[in-house]
Amino acid sequence: MAEKKRGAQSVLLQNRPRVLSFASMAGPKEAEGPLAGTFDETFTDDTLGEKSWERGEAKMLEHTVDLALSKARVYADAVDAFLGGDLLNQIVSASYTARQLGAPFLGLYGACSTMAESLLLGALLVDGGYADRVVCATCSHFATAERQYRFPLELGNQRTPTAQWTVTGAGATLLGRGEAKGLPLRLTAATIGRVVDKQQTDINNMGAAMAPAAADTLLAHLRDLHRSVQDYDLIVTGDLGCVGYDLMCLLCEQKGVSLDERYIDCGCEVFSPEQDVHAGGSGCGCSACCLNGWLFRRMLSGEIRRLLFLATGALMSTTTSQQGESIPAIAHAVTLEVEEG
Amino acid sequence: MAEKKRGAQSVLLQNRPRVLSFASMAGPKEAEGPLAGTFDETFTDDTLGEKSWERGEAKMLEHTVDLALSKARVYADAVDAFLGGDLLNQIVSASYTARQLGAPFLGLYGACSTMAESLLLGALLVDGGYADRVVCATCSHFATAERQYRFPLELGNQRTPTAQWTVTGAGATLLGRGEAKGLPLRLTAATIGRVVDKQQTDINNMGAAMAPAAADTLLAHLRDLHRSVQDYDLIVTGDLGCVGYDLMCLLCEQKGVSLDERYIDCGCEVFSPEQDVHAGGSGCGCSACCLNGWLFRRMLSGEIRRLLFLATGALMSTTTSQQGESIPAIAHAVTLEVEEG
Repeated sequence: MAEKKRGAQSVLLQNRPRVLSFASMAGPKEAEGPLAGTFDETFTDDTLGEKSWERGEAKMLEHTVDLALSKARVYADAVDAFLGGDLLNQIVSASYTARQLGAPFLGLYGACSTMAESLLLGALLVDGGYADRVVCATCSHFATAERQYRFPLELGNQRTPTAQWTVTGAGATLLGRGEAKGLPLRLTAATIGRVVDKQQTDINNMGAAMAPAAADTLLAHLRDLHRSVQDYDLIVTGDLGCVGYDLMCLLCEQKGVSLDERYIDCGCEVFSPEQDVHAGGSGCGCSACCLNGWLFRRMLSGEIRRLLFLATGALMSTTTSQQGESIPAIAHAVTLEVEEG
Repeated sequence: MAEKKRGAQSVLLQNRPRVLSFASMAGPKEAEGPLAGTFDETFTDDTLGEKSWERGEAKMLEHTVDLALSKARVYADAVDAFLGGDLLNQIVSASYTARQLGAPFLGLYGACSTMAESLLLGALLVDGGYADRVVCATCSHFATAERQYRFPLELGNQRTPTAQWTVTGAGATLLGRGEAKGLPLRLTAATIGRVVDKQQTDINNMGAAMAPAAADTLLAHLRDLHRSVQDYDLIVTGDLGCVGYDLMCLLCEQKGVSLDERYIDCGCEVFSPEQDVHAGGSGCGCSACCLNGWLFRRMLSGEIRRLLFLATGALMSTTTSQQGESIPAIAHAVTLEVEEG
């Protein structure tokens, strides 16, 4: 049984669940970006041959989960739980994926923090002995998100300089028990985030809404586990973009924590400046496809040995925004480590 | 560490997390129904004095969580996690509640199965030692659900005979470690549901969409734990309503399981036939306010000693319904037992 300190948001996972496999898919714009070679599969038709973007998004997630399972040679009936969600209303992409997979399903909503939330909860289920194998996965799609949250794409609306571009992509991680055979990657600690809301109301500036939540969770993680930034080779936020990245550095600096060169944001990495995405990439799929491709590969190559994955989510809806509410935000964190044997 | 059998969807919780307190609130129509005296608080103004129904819904959930904490004399900073969600897009009622509470937050989406999903995951966190105290809560509101999922209320649309009436209500359970002082109520087993979709496309007949998922989870629970219906004093589904209730009985009967007089559905109990709600009550709040009032009180009075709480959810969105997709459904189950000492 794990030991939980009063007031702490973080736990160390005694049984150190193992990453058995991972997979990622990304769309046409992401395939032209700097991380092009790191995804398992990319596609050029953003409906993936389906009759709607929404069906295409579900197909992308279904296929990414299948890829992760096939890499580990695990059949769907050996999956004890699928934990996931997405940006669409009622997380329909994840629900349809769960329907196809047939495994027990725990639906999550953490907006763009979902990859970290699913890894966190999945790892606790495995660490506690409640599951042997869990799939943690999420996705997002530019076209479905744009028309749900903003405007019909056909309008060709202008975007503000602080706006971010929703990544069309998906990522899936298969976690298993510490003693299972698999990759030399383990999930060793987790921090559950709190909702932080600094009264930001501009839905075209998600980075500013989410940066305080990212800083809150990072500081809680370091405090709870008596760690410093230097204990990590890399700290990675999900999709703060360039506006949120700068704010995150500033907020941590104000608390005496210098992030220096050990900190990157997936939203700043997934597209190049020439791709005209303004403040960077966003969406559940942004950090999911970066982690389950580029970042895990860098860990396997020995370049990064200990990584803090800190995905951030903005929890507003179009209704609350139209009603003038500010944007609540959250960030969850998991520690991933390279460990041989 | 718990022991998980391959292929099983269910686990027995070795440390038997304890219900420290529970609370419920309900709206004007529910306050005129047969369960009127079992809610902690009821209200007549369905905006609860706020400027919108959505703000009112969030206030209802916030207040219900506060009630549960104050009954157990637990401060918010002693809550290790709040697990919850609701029916609104991006689960905004739960997110705003998490913002006010300030506790670490794990957002869930299981539609009307959310009360069971939150109890299940919350109990696993406590059982595994990852948390000492967790709040599991959810809510729904007739007016916000109606205008989000169906039509503006001002239209006065006719409802079909199979339609259900979304309950305006909220429920919260505070769970703690088995050795904690609290009520003589424990959560002893849990079953994670799978998505079941029998190609039902009528969004005015949720009962028919959800009954197969309820049957699937009940049968998995009985199979995994080698139990029979007779091992329970009462089996309670969330909001199948009268159409789904009959289907559930039929589906179980076909598998050789007779539910007889040990089975009820919250959707059939929360309103009286005279209240003109057609097939019964529905919404996350339906099973949440029935459990955290009427049912827990019946357990404390000694009338029920072992209860299976099986909340069901329909996982469609308005977009997928308009695109002609069928309705995926899910049900999660938890066993609650009276135990002195």
